[in-house]
This record gives sequence, structure tokens and C-alpha cells, in this order.
Amino acid sequence: MTVPAFADWMSQTNDVTEVFLAAGQIPDLINMAGGLPEPTLWPVAEIADLAARVVHDDPAQALGYSPIAGLPALRDAIAARFSTPDLPLGRDNVLITTGGMQALDLLGKVLLEPCGQIAAQSPTYLGALDAWRPRAPAYRPMVLGANGFDPVAALRGAAFAYTVPNFSNPTGRLVGTAERAALLEAARQTGTWLVEDDPYGTLCYDDAPLPRILSLAGTGGAYDGPVIYLGTLSKELAPGLRIGWVIAAPRMIAALTTAKQGSDMCTSGLCQMIALRAFEHGLVDRIQPQVRDLYRSRRDALCAAMDRHLSGVLDWQVPRGGMFVWATARDPRLDTDGLLRVALEHGVCIAPGSVFDPLGVDRRSLRINFTLNPPDRLVEGTRRLAGAISACLAACGPSL
Amino acid sequence: MTVPAFADWMSQTNDVTEVFLAAGQIPDLINMAGGLPEPTLWPVAEIADLAARVVHDDPAQALGYSPIAGLPALRDAIAARFSTPDLPLGRDNVLITTGGMQALDLLGKVLLEPCGQIAAQSPTYLGALDAWRPRAPAYRPMVLGANGFDPVAALRGAAFAYTVPNFSNPTGRLVGTAERAALLEAARQTGTWLVEDDPYGTLCYDDAPLPRILSLAGTGGAYDGPVIYLGTLSKELAPGLRIGWVIAAPRMIAALTTAKQGSDMCTSGLCQMIALRAFEHGLVDRIQPQVRDLYRSRRDALCAAMDRHLSGVLDWQVPRGGMFVWATARDPRLDTDGLLRVALEHGVCIAPGSVFDPLGVDRRSLRINFTLNPPDRLVEGTRRLAGAISACLAACGPSL
Repeated sequence: MTVPAFADWMSQTNDVTEVFLAAGQIPDLINMAGGLPEPTLWPVAEIADLAARVVHDDPAQALGYSPIAGLPALRDAIAARFSTPDLPLGRDNVLITTGGMQALDLLGKVLLEPCGQIAAQSPTYLGALDAWRPRAPAYRPMVLGANGFDPVAALRGAAFAYTVPNFSNPTGRLVGTAERAALLEAARQTGTWLVEDDPYGTLCYDDAPLPRILSLAGTGGAYDGPVIYLGTLSKELAPGLRIGWVIAAPRMIAALTTAKQGSDMCTSGLCQMIALRAFEHGLVDRIQPQVRDLYRSRRDALCAAMDRHLSGVLDWQVPRGGMFVWATARDPRLDTDGLLRVALEHGVCIAPGSVFDPLGVDRRSLRINFTLNPPDRLVEGTRRLAGAISACLAACGPSL
Repeated sequence: MTVPAFADWMSQTNDVTEVFLAAGQIPDLINMAGGLPEPTLWPVAEIADLAARVVHDDPAQALGYSPIAGLPALRDAIAARFSTPDLPLGRDNVLITTGGMQALDLLGKVLLEPCGQIAAQSPTYLGALDAWRPRAPAYRPMVLGANGFDPVAALRGAAFAYTVPNFSNPTGRLVGTAERAALLEAARQTGTWLVEDDPYGTLCYDDAPLPRILSLAGTGGAYDGPVIYLGTLSKELAPGLRIGWVIAAPRMIAALTTAKQGSDMCTSGLCQMIALRAFEHGLVDRIQPQVRDLYRSRRDALCAAMDRHLSGVLDWQVPRGGMFVWATARDPRLDTDGLLRVALEHGVCIAPGSVFDPLGVDRRSLRINFTLNPPDRLVEGTRRLAGAISACLAACGPSL
């Protein structure tokens, strides 16, 4: 038969994902590329018990179709959890999504005309770029904190703005309170939706959390503001449940619900019921200190190893939270797309900066994960990465 | 703030869904509109036990991120279940989706350029129209079985063709083997993908199942044909698990996997593991006879009541499977969109034909569900519907 064509956007991908996938076959590889959690942190016995109980006690909710926007009790629980005195949230402010990723897909559907514009904190979460690619958007990169950055100019006329203010993926950057307020003010001035994606908010290792942009948008009345807040249980409990949520103005929740109806009809009732009970029983809050303690120690182990092995060749800042260290090569000859291939030969995998660049041109940066591996593996991985960088630079010939 | 606009497609909806939702508030309403299963058919104790065991025994698979395309063991199980001597399927032929609905969304993403054409069996499943609306497709309605229907002309140049050959939603129609073969031959001749959506295949009450179009496409070698087969556990086990699957050529599975990555990253590992064990332990096959027996008796109860109360005003055929009776008004003055509102006043809800018409113009037909309600409620609902139709026709004045 004639081979039919796929839609145009399908060709707008690079081969880095293929390289990642092939990496899974390499024996003894140290994977510092992904954003995977440490599985021993999952409260397995408690979740197993909850899973059986919700099916047994409430089969209609666990095994039936859920309302498209989510189980009312779970929407209420999320609303209560994120309410503050200035931000009284109700059920109509909450949509349950199939993982945090689905919220990004739904936002693209309801807000992006073909070739619409996104003002995106740059570099940007790879998954967000994946989610929006079928709508073929144009990007205005927002380099938050850069000299002369003008939030109003950045947001004006965009379909929406996108930021990960807490320990951004990939950079680990914490967006300060004044910057948060400036983004909110720009959203209000320009009438542009402001997406606050917050998967890492609870993973803060050195300080108390800063106020959410959503919280700054509270006015004391029913919430109807421009901030669209995205949360997920993937980092706080377990990714296999695929439970995320959106908090937004009721008209935005209604629009996203229409889009969700045609995307997966509803999120698993079983998983929603487990999430509800995990919140109600305090399970989610109970495990956070262990998660923070373990990840803080791993961050420290990675950064100490980097100090020892990489301080001459890379620049980075110690992240105050999240899952990643973002580093930039001092030598402009180092191409981090090329480094990935050499690193795999040295038995370590990192994520090259190009995949996080909405314009796809960055070849100087890389992202290193510290949550998945124990300290000894992080140290060994760093040693291997240093070897790979040396090999890359040696292959470039003498420095100019 | 200025109210930002939503994407254009968001305005392309009718208000029937709102009417349905409001119907949930009416006391003693008999809901014959939806496509809901009978909850007492779910094997609750067995699923509760499986849920606890898969979390306890295999937390990495149940609680971690799954591979995007699905857990390998579940893909293998689906491949084995649908293989025939002429159709040896492998893991690369299978994608796990978050319910059957997600497969429709992913197909739209990978195949539809804006304003692309879909050759759709007409009337068409409402959810498919929902899933494709964000890509703003144009429809070529295919009235299978109509005089002079030419499959080759229908498929040529379309992005894909869509059919529900087993007890189609909404019509309950069974597409015959010769028609199946003709659609397959047209797909081969024209190089057009042919989507075989099969949620009701196991719900056959009177005869042995006909061969799947997918099976007809088997050539004895590794499968690389034009048929894209969609299945789901929502009718065979429980909808709350949100487990569906696609069986297709490996290049189509790869494309859909790329689209799934940006849609919800992966389907819940917990739900996938429950599905896998439910297949392995024979649970899915064990409950099918009970499901068929119960639904057959309800179909018979509904059709007997319709014979008694509606034979003068509606035409219909007794469906040989599925969940619905499709009926058409004899009197051209009966508007079934208007009937829905009057029926709600009479305490019964049905689905008007307009929502299943890709062109949105049908006002003569309606869909009646028989799986959710016990026989006495089906009889009472039919009596109420007859009253509503009489009231509608009386309001039209004397017949011409």
C-alpha cells in the first residue's frame, strides 16, 4: 500500500529521545539524564492497603467512569489544600488530570490556535515542548532574571506564559518573590494567562517555600484570576498513579474539562480514590521530610563530586531544591549534543541542553539528575562525565 | 483583566452536554442516554485483591513511570490475545492507552492536519467527534450498507477512515463480513489508514462474533497493514481502570507513542498491572458470559416495551449486540433535540441523534441505552418516552 503521511509536526523532533531509549540497553550505565524518583521512598504497604480498600469500600467511584473534571471529593480536597485566607478556592477552581503532563496538553488545546505564541521561561521543560508541538506554536523565550527583562512586553499578545518558579526544570532556578509578583502584574495588565507549573514545590532543601504565584493572585474573594496553577502527585507520592491537578478560574476549568472529555474522558477513579485517601490520611505530608532529606543528601553528594571533578570545565549553581543541576561548559568548543554520545560510551547519561531550548539551538548546557542514584553512583557518574568531557575536548584539538 | 480568547474549536459545541449534566439533578430520572455499564457486573473482590497484590509484589511497575507505549508484559499479553494463525502480532504492534478515548485523540494528533478529512461511518460515536474537534477536521459521512456506497471513493484522499463494525455506537449496527472486506480492500487500494474501533466486540447476544477487520488484514507475516484496531477494558472489565489499546503497524505504534509522550507521558502502571493480571488469571474471560446474559435480557426487555409503547411512532431494529437501540421518528415533525427537553420533564433521558451526526443536522433519530437499568426501569422509561413523544407531537398541532 501507499504509505500515508503523518501530520507535519511529527517531523519536528530530534533524535535525543532515541538515544535515551537506546541507553537503557547499556550495562552498568549510570542514568543521570531523567527526572526519576527514588523508588524506596514510595510508601508501598500503605498504597497497597489503600488500593484494596477503595475498590472494596467504594467500587462505584473506583471502578466506574468518574465525572470528567474529577471526583468531587478529590477536587474539594485539592481546593482546601491550596486555599489561603486571601485565596478561598472551591471545587469549580479544580480539575483533576492524568498526571501533570495532561494539563499541559489540555492547555495547548484550549489556548493555542495553530502557530499561536507562548511566552516560555527559557530554558523550558522538555515535556511542555512535547505537549504543545502538535499545535505548532511559536516561542518567545523568557530569560527570567536577565538584565532588562520586561514581563509586560514578554506577555503582551501571547496565548499564555509558562513558568516553573520552584526549582525549574531544567535549571533548578528558584524564581524570587519580586519576579513572581512582576509576572502576575504583567498577566493582569496584558490579559494573558500565566501558567505556574509546580511539580517540585515540596522539594525544597535549604529554605522555607516562597509564596506561589497563585497565592499572590488571591484577592480574598472567589478565585477568578489569570494564574493557572499545575500540581502533581508524581513527586509527592508516586508517578504510577498519574494524578495531577489544575487550579484556575472557573471558566478556564470549564474549558479544560471540555478538552479533557475528548482526550481521555476521565482520570482513573481507582487512582483518584487512592490520592484522596492519601491526602485524608496524611500520607502525602508524612513522607515529605524523608523525601527532602534523601534528595538533599544526594544533591550534596553530586555537587561535592562536581566540585572535585568538573570545576575547571563546567559552571553551575547549587540548586536549593528540585531534582537537577544545570551546568554550562566553559569551553565554547564543547557541544553537549555530541557529549551525550561520548558520555554513553563512558557509561553515564545526561540530558543535553538542546532539548530544553524552545528554539533548539543550545549546545553549551547540560542537565544532571541527582534523585535517582545513591551517592556512590553519583560520584562515579560524575567521574565518568569528567572523562567524557575530556575526551570530547581532546577530540576538538588544541584550544584556540 | 481582559478576558483572553480560547481556541476557535471551543465554540464548535452544542449545549446537549449541558442538558445531560443538568439531568443528573432531576429526582427519579431514568437515564437511558449514556453508555454506562451495570456496576454489579464488576468483579469487585477480585480487583481489590489484584490491586493490593500488584502494588505489594511489584511496586516498581505499579507505582513508577511506565514506558510510554505501555508495560512490555501487558503489550505482549494483548498481542497474544489478538493473534491468529494469519496474524502473528508482536509487542511492536501494541500501544497501551488511557482508555479507548485516548487512542482517538492520539490518532487525531498524528494524522490530522488542520482541516484534514475523515471518512467516518455515519452516524458516528460522539466521543470520536469530541476527540478530533481540536484539529478541526472535515467529515465525509460513510453510510455503510447504503445503496451505491463506494468504499474506494469514500477513502481516497482521507487522512483516515473510522468505523465501529461491531454494534456501532450509536446505531447498534453489525457491519457484515463482506462490507468489512470491502473496507479493508479500499484501505489497501487507496493507502488510507482504516480505524476499527471495537469497544463492543464481546457484547454479542445472538450470534458468534464476525472476524475483526484486523484479522482479515493478516497475511501470515509480521503485521504491517492499514487497519488500526482499538480495544478497551471499559466494557470487558471496568471503566475506572482507564485501560485501552491500539493494535497497528509498528510505524503507526511508534507515531502514536510520540503523541502519547506529550499527552499523558504514560498510562497508570497500577492500572496496567491490574489489567495484566486480570488477563493472566482469566478474570476478563470469566465474566463475559454473565455480562452477555444480563445485557441480552435487558435488550429484550427494552425492545418488548418499545414494541408495546412506541411501535406506532418510531422505527428501529433489534440490535444483535452492544448497548443501544437506535430509533427514527416516523413523523417528520418530531425534532429529537426538542424531544430531549420534553423527555426530561417526563423523567427520562435519551440521546438525540444530532450529537452523533458529523454534520450536526440529524433531528429525526435518538439513541436508547439498555445496559444501565433493570427491566422494570426500562419499561417505565419507555412508557415515559412514549408520553414525551405524544406531548411533542401534540404541541406541533394536527399532522399534515
